[in-house]
Amino acid sequence: MGDISNGMKAAYDEASQGYMEGGIPIGAVLVDRAGVVLGRGHNQRIQKSSPTFHGEISALENAGRLKAAVYREATLYTTLSPCSMCTGAILLYKIPRVVIGENDNFKGEEDLLRARGVEVTVMDNQECRDLMRRFILERPEEWNEDIGESA
Amino acid sequence: MGDISNGMKAAYDEASQGYMEGGIPIGAVLVDRAGVVLGRGHNQRIQKSSPTFHGEISALENAGRLKAAVYREATLYTTLSPCSMCTGAILLYKIPRVVIGENDNFKGEEDLLRARGVEVTVMDNQECRDLMRRFILERPEEWNEDIGESA
Repeated sequence: MGDISNGMKAAYDEASQGYMEGGIPIGAVLVDRAGVVLGRGHNQRIQKSSPTFHGEISALENAGRLKAAVYREATLYTTLSPCSMCTGAILLYKIPRVVIGENDNFKGEEDLLRARGVEVTVMDNQECRDLMRRFILERPEEWNEDIGESA
Repeated sequence: MGDISNGMKAAYDEASQGYMEGGIPIGAVLVDRAGVVLGRGHNQRIQKSSPTFHGEISALENAGRLKAAVYREATLYTTLSPCSMCTGAILLYKIPRVVIGENDNFKGEEDLLRARGVEVTVMDNQECRDLMRRFILERPEEWNEDIGESA
């Protein structure tokens, strides 16, 4: 299924690992223009008691310091539509392409990304949707906390 | 000079500490409705080789996991106008007030914050401006990297 599916597969693997750790199952992977992984990660709210290590932020953090030119040819894969913070990180580094597993469980700032010229693809992936849905049903309070909502 | 100045003083102290560590001198402090500090931090790009620990993200991270209701009555003080990522974090947690030291060295997403209903105050503070300016002149490459620009 090509590069896009490889990227989403890796992001889903991150989400699954997060779920197995007892965490919020959202994963993300940053790949370069050749499809090589620059960084990958998953949400760390529960594992590290972190309010900022969403899946996308974790992937960017794990990629380390990169030159502006690298981000500008990269693609970010994420299992769930990115929230405001992760959207802002994408805009900060001018990442031109974002591939989203699903946006049924949460619709983030896709409109803002598109308005700023980011190419956004929603894969409508059933595995991403099912895993996220399972967590939300099991632990609604942690999920709401992660998106800044009251339970 | 009241709570606002106490908050900015603490944010500036964070920025100064960052500068003394050899880092990018941007600091931020999250305070609750009573003015009590919930978390404080400074940019960690150089110290931790981190692309995501901007001053504001560091302050949020150091505050730890908070209930949605706490963020919604909090104020974020930051020495420099917040970038897209930090703006997104403010929007994610629906922090209603942001106090900015200065926006001469960098003008972030103040318009987006205001458009989403955040109360934004720019203090036009000379100390914040001078410290940031000093760093930019000394280390333009690191500064550009921090805002996703080429040197």
